[in-house]
This record gives sequence, structure tokens and C-alpha cells, in this order.
Amino acid sequence: MLHKKTKKLVPAILGITLAASTLLSAGQSHAVDRVNAISVETKKIKNIIFLIGDGMGTPYTTAYRYMKDNPSTPLMEKTEFDPYLIGAQMTYPEDEHQNVTDSASAATAMSAGVKTYNAAIAVDNDHSEVKTVLERAKENGKATGLVATSEITHATPAAFGAHDISRKNMDAIADDYFDELVNGKHKVDVLLGGGKSNFVREDRDLTKEFQRAGFSYVTDRSALLKDNNNQILGLFADGGLDKMIDRTSETPSLAEMTNAAINRLNTSENGFFLMIEGSQIDWAGHDNDIVGSMSEMEDFAKAFRTAIDFAKEDGETLVVATADHSTGGLTLGKDGEYNFLAAPIKAAKRTPDFMAAQIAAGSSVEDTLKKYIELELTAEEIKSVQDAAKEKKVTDIDNAIEAIFNNRSFTGWTTGGHTGDDVPVYAYGPGKDRFAGLIDNTDNARIIFDILNKHK
Amino acid sequence: MLHKKTKKLVPAILGITLAASTLLSAGQSHAVDRVNAISVETKKIKNIIFLIGDGMGTPYTTAYRYMKDNPSTPLMEKTEFDPYLIGAQMTYPEDEHQNVTDSASAATAMSAGVKTYNAAIAVDNDHSEVKTVLERAKENGKATGLVATSEITHATPAAFGAHDISRKNMDAIADDYFDELVNGKHKVDVLLGGGKSNFVREDRDLTKEFQRAGFSYVTDRSALLKDNNNQILGLFADGGLDKMIDRTSETPSLAEMTNAAINRLNTSENGFFLMIEGSQIDWAGHDNDIVGSMSEMEDFAKAFRTAIDFAKEDGETLVVATADHSTGGLTLGKDGEYNFLAAPIKAAKRTPDFMAAQIAAGSSVEDTLKKYIELELTAEEIKSVQDAAKEKKVTDIDNAIEAIFNNRSFTGWTTGGHTGDDVPVYAYGPGKDRFAGLIDNTDNARIIFDILNKHK
Repeated sequence: MLHKKTKKLVPAILGITLAASTLLSAGQSHAVDRVNAISVETKKIKNIIFLIGDGMGTPYTTAYRYMKDNPSTPLMEKTEFDPYLIGAQMTYPEDEHQNVTDSASAATAMSAGVKTYNAAIAVDNDHSEVKTVLERAKENGKATGLVATSEITHATPAAFGAHDISRKNMDAIADDYFDELVNGKHKVDVLLGGGKSNFVREDRDLTKEFQRAGFSYVTDRSALLKDNNNQILGLFADGGLDKMIDRTSETPSLAEMTNAAINRLNTSENGFFLMIEGSQIDWAGHDNDIVGSMSEMEDFAKAFRTAIDFAKEDGETLVVATADHSTGGLTLGKDGEYNFLAAPIKAAKRTPDFMAAQIAAGSSVEDTLKKYIELELTAEEIKSVQDAAKEKKVTDIDNAIEAIFNNRSFTGWTTGGHTGDDVPVYAYGPGKDRFAGLIDNTDNARIIFDILNKHK
Repeated sequence: MLHKKTKKLVPAILGITLAASTLLSAGQSHAVDRVNAISVETKKIKNIIFLIGDGMGTPYTTAYRYMKDNPSTPLMEKTEFDPYLIGAQMTYPEDEHQNVTDSASAATAMSAGVKTYNAAIAVDNDHSEVKTVLERAKENGKATGLVATSEITHATPAAFGAHDISRKNMDAIADDYFDELVNGKHKVDVLLGGGKSNFVREDRDLTKEFQRAGFSYVTDRSALLKDNNNQILGLFADGGLDKMIDRTSETPSLAEMTNAAINRLNTSENGFFLMIEGSQIDWAGHDNDIVGSMSEMEDFAKAFRTAIDFAKEDGETLVVATADHSTGGLTLGKDGEYNFLAAPIKAAKRTPDFMAAQIAAGSSVEDTLKKYIELELTAEEIKSVQDAAKEKKVTDIDNAIEAIFNNRSFTGWTTGGHTGDDVPVYAYGPGKDRFAGLIDNTDNARIIFDILNKHK
């Protein structure tokens, strides 16, 4: 179909100016289709970087803009994402009991083009395995990578590089990364994230197996930055990584992991496919934690910038960034207030989770809040946390600290789960216009498969 | 700038095929810019229809898709809006005390290209009047119209056809519609909506003044459909119109008013500018009423379809549909539930407001709920409304009925006010791609002014 359209355009371009310009203006969507068709046919797409902000619905990308605004200028500065917005996607799953998606089902839609049940890791509703774009890329001789701030075996990366009837089986997912071969080769060349405990187990130590197969294995930032092997397994935490504002210098940022992945994968003559997940935007959303959400948005935005910078330099790289769903029912403004205030959120030097853990471990409430929050807290606010701390339960303390930030910033939440609203789609590079307008989450895989077929 | 780009493109199109296709694919955003430039320069844009779904943030357009889904098919059917999505817009105001917009400030941004304070009706922060796209269209000899389901003097239509330091001054806004002339003529040819009480007052009867000036004056659907005068004032309620599912046959739908407006305005040789507002999506959102919200989304979607159908037939009409902000902090799913269920919402035959008014006026709670809700309500649900009805306060009864629908559908809300999240932008027809990507609300006016300047 694309080929046919290109054929139609060519003679018109050779015609007189008036005819050509009439063609281009007669129904602009057709004109844009033709532009796509030409670029897909003639412009090489060597590399694909697919970024997923887990839980990053429109309220998150807008809230992040409020965070990045310079209050001393009248207009709001745009974010790293804004110049690349090209549309939105629908996220609903095909699940017998739920019509709002989880991350596994959404990731399977984006990786394999198949709507399935919630919890499915690249398997269809009948539990049969479905091929993913990462697997197809590897079949085509491309290098491949998965990067996340969660366990690298968590639902989103798993649905690109493994198959399982349940996202819960993270050990089996780690096994898949090693055991499932494509043309006799391990299918993922670069694995960077958390989840050491799923690789180093009583029954099996996959880190050793990967090393014997020629992979480097690193567990901290400095080792990652020093390493120069093209195949690497980097596991920087037993579970998920710390959130950006809680990290020490020994935990890499998502941008550093992205950069490390690109540098390795880009040595492949046949190009690469790389999936990068800002995993914990979602985790903070489940927790109704605006401080953590914005920390992880910043981490993801910097990774996106790293990918865009590479793609601009490279010229043959398609970058797509989107979300799998929105989380928490986040709203900018609540309880009748026409404001969403970034300053109280920026005043946090650590997440409420971090502070709550210190308090539960015995630190003084007042000292801990003073140390990590650059705000004059009221006596009532301090007392609310002291009351919550009486039982030394981290969750209670965490909720009390989160409430301070939610109330001061006017951040609303409606759920500890996900919501069904469409999520934004950003794209850059050759082929980007194929993602424009309203697409379905399965369209991502459908288009990428098509690109991989045409650009072998 | 546009002219310059067109000049650049012309020699390239006359060049060889390879050169032309390389040009089109070298950075697709540039290619799209050029497509825009060509269409703006060469394709006539005679008419502009600008539709505003007041309060229609992304959660509303997605919820409406869940409502329109046919449950017997696996995939979710797309709505009237979906094929035309081209991006999103930022809505923040320039207000000293609030960074989430109201409808007046947002409408002024879209009508005049100026960010201003909340409550401003086409005036800047210094209270000086700012020219609107409707006024410029009239200066250029176009016919003009305003259509709404609120009072036609309400914030959104007012900011296109009047000027006032406060949206509250609806009588003065009605005066503006009659008194402010452009080139000696009344600036709005078609005014259709509610708000009779702002026109028929002790100090002045503007309906008589409009009639003496040659306008028809109608107050019900049948009179609207019978009338064939090109200038018309139609006021179908003292305040806002009833919501769609509460209307009798004597109140026109937004689609009927849209059709009536287009038929009249389209007799203008110089084309027309028409603003259409689905006003009460927002009102239902303020009320946290999912039944009313979806009723008004349906009314607005049919008006949008009417505009699109005309534009497809006409070929020289640009249609843009967007929102001014989102309202109520609506979320699809709440309290940890991964569902947003349309069936309970579809079971309502009238809005909770309508039922509450009947109960407050003396109707039996049980009979009223049974008559207007096609669900087997539980004893607890009926009792919750009976308890709320003890004081005969409409608001309490309304809230209790709304809670039944919110709980059964898993609809979340966080506020009785607005929220700051970006809102979707839909467009069709010549010039549509100029609205693509992420735009600011002021860009709408900026682009329309530019089109009006170039297509006199």
C-alpha cells in the first residue's frame, strides 16, 4: 500500500508546480500519508529506541511542565517531551474482568501487537507465545537492549524479551532472557536495571551463566561506566533501583544506563532495537506520591533527551516515547483549588518513602522532616507525621508525609491502581509520522514490525 | 515565513524525483511544515468552525469512547472525534493567584491570543480590550456566529463576541453583542443558546432591539427549524439549556443549532467564522456527575459530526475542536479498581439533577429512581437517597444519586473545580496541520488570525 502511494506521488512531483502543490494540499492527511510513505520507503531506519514512561499519562507530562517552569518568566517553558508530541494512544486491554490495563498487557500490546489479559507477558489470551519486536529485530541481525529502573524482569521489559503466563514469575522471566535463543544467540545483548535477586538464586546463578557466555556483569555505576564490552548484564539493586532523588553516586541514572546501552548497541552494523522504561513513575503513582512521581519523570526525561540527542546526531534512528497507561488518578488541582504548585514538591530532597523508612528505623520525626524538606512545616503537619509514627509502620508514616506534599501542591489522586485515559505519544526521526494522531497501543508493534520488515 | 518556505519548495518540486523525495523525507517535521505552508498559501480557507468542549479533557474523550463501545465486539469502536486527533494544547492562564485556568481566561487565549487573568472576557491583564478572531472575521466581511448550550453570554462565547472585566457581567455582555458594531454592523449574525434573562430585562429588552435590527428571534426548536432569516437570535432557556438527556422536544440539540447556524452563515459570499460550545460538559464535571458529563459529550460529538459533514462536503472549511481545560479531576477507575463501566451510566434516563429536583418537589424517592434508572438498585442505594432527601435539599439528593453512578461505574473525581492537564486538539480541513503537535491555547487565535489575514 505504501509502495502504491509512492508510485502515485512520483509522477506528480515531476509535473508542474501548481499540480504538485495541489496534490500536497488536497486533504492534508493524505499528503502526510505520502510523506510517511516516502520516508519509510527511502529514508533508512537503522535503529529504533522505544521509551515507555510507565504510568505517564497526560497529567504526569503536564505536571512535569509545571515543575520545570521558571517562575520568573511569564510563559511556561516546554519540557524535553513537548516538541515531539504527535498524538495519543488507547490503552485498554482484552481482559475478561478488567477494562483498564495493567503494565504487562499494555507492554504485550506494544511489543507484540496483541491485546491480551492483564498479567500476560508476551502471551495471547490462549497462553500461546507471541513474537515481539525485539525478537524480530534480533532475527534481522540487530543488536537489542532492555533498560529499566525496576527489576529488568518486571512486566514492561519482560514483555519485550520473555514469555510467561504471569508477570509474577520473574525468576522464569530471567531464565528466558538467558535460555531463549534467536538464531542460536542470546536475544538481549544489553540488560540494565534492577532485580539481582531474580538472577542470583539458590537453584541458579544467571549472572555467572551470562558471564560464561561472554557478557560483562556489573552491579554499580562506576563498573558500568568503566566497562566496554558490547554485551552486558547490569543489575544495580536486588529489586527496583532507588528513585532518582534517593540514589547514591553508585546507582546509575536512567540516562546513564541509556547512554551505556546506546554506545554498545550502536557498534552493531545492522542497527539496534532498544526499549527503555522509566519504571517507577508508575510506582510513585500507585503510592500517590507526587514527589516520587516527579523524581522519576525527571529521570525519564533525561533518558529521553539522551535518546533524542543520539538520534539527531545519527539521522537513521527512530525514537518513540509513550506510556502504557496512567496511574493513581493524578490530577493537577484538587478540592476546588485552581492551582497546582510545584514549589512544595521541589522542596523535597528525598521521597516520602525514604524519610518514612528513616523514621520507622528510629530517627526523630521532626529532625528527619527538617533535614529532607526545605519548607517551614506547621506544627499540625509535624504532628500528623508524629501521630502516624506511633505504631512505627512505614506505610502510615509514608502516607502522612505524602499528604503534606499533596495538600500543599494541590495534587489529587483517586486510586492506588491505574486509570483508562489515553496517553501521549512522542516521536522523532524517520518513520515518526506513522505514529501520529490517535493510535492503539497495538499499533506500536504493528508499525515497528512493518519497519523491521522493510528495513532489513 | 510561510511564503519563504513555499518559495524554497517550488524549485525542489521541479527538480528530479530523487531530490524531491529526499527533500520531503529530510526531517519530517520540516516536510509537514512545508505541506502546511503550501496548503495555507494555495488552498482556500473560506470558513472556520471552532468547537470548544468546555471541560473536555482527555479523561472525558476517553470515557466517551468507553460509552460508545459495542460490548459485543472485541475492539473498542472509535468516536466521532478520534480520527481527527492531531495533538494537545496547554491551558494555563496568566493570573496572579491561580495557575489553573477558568473558562473566561482560556476562551480569551483561544479567541484573542492573549493570556490573561481568570474571569477576563477578551480583556488583557491591564483590562484593555483585545481583538478577537470573530471580530477580525467580521471586519473581513465574513458572517459570524456563536452557539452554546449555556447562556450565550457565558464565559466561552462571551470571550469571542464581547469584552468585559468580568464574566459575571452577563447583562453587559448581552449589551455588547448588540451595541458593539464592526464596520457599522452587528458583529454576531447568529446567536443561539440560553440566557433569555440576560436579554429581556427591566432596563432593556435586547430581543426587541435585535428584531428591529432585522434579526429573527426564536425561543423554541420548532420556531428555529421554521425560520429562514440569515440573522437570528435564539434563546431557548432563561439560563442554560437542559442537558441533552433531560430535554423535551421543544429544546434544540447542539447539532440542530449547529446546523441552523451553518445553513445561515454559509449564504455569506465571504465565508464565515462560527464558534460552537458544548458548554455543560464542564457543568456536569463541576457537579462530579458522570451521567450529565456523558450526556453533554454526546450532544457535543453530534455537533462536531455536523460540522465535519459540512466541511467534507464544502472543501474550504477548517474545523478545529478542543477544550478550554479539564474539569472535576475525572478519572476512569477509582479506589484500586481496574475498570470503568459504561453500563451503569447508560442506565440513567435523566440526570441526577433532574431526578433530585423531582424528589425535592415531593416525588417518592423509590418511584423516581425506578422510573429513571434502568438498574436493580440495592436497598442500601435507595436508602442513601432517602436519607439524603430528609431535608428536601436538592444538592444533597443530587449528590446521593451521583454517588450511585460514580460507585457503580468506578468514576473518580478530585475537585469541584478545574484541573491543569493538557487537553486534546482535533482538526479537519485545509490548514489543519498548523494545529498539530503540542500547541499553546493562544496559538489557536494566532493561527486563525494568520489564516484570516491571508484568506481575505
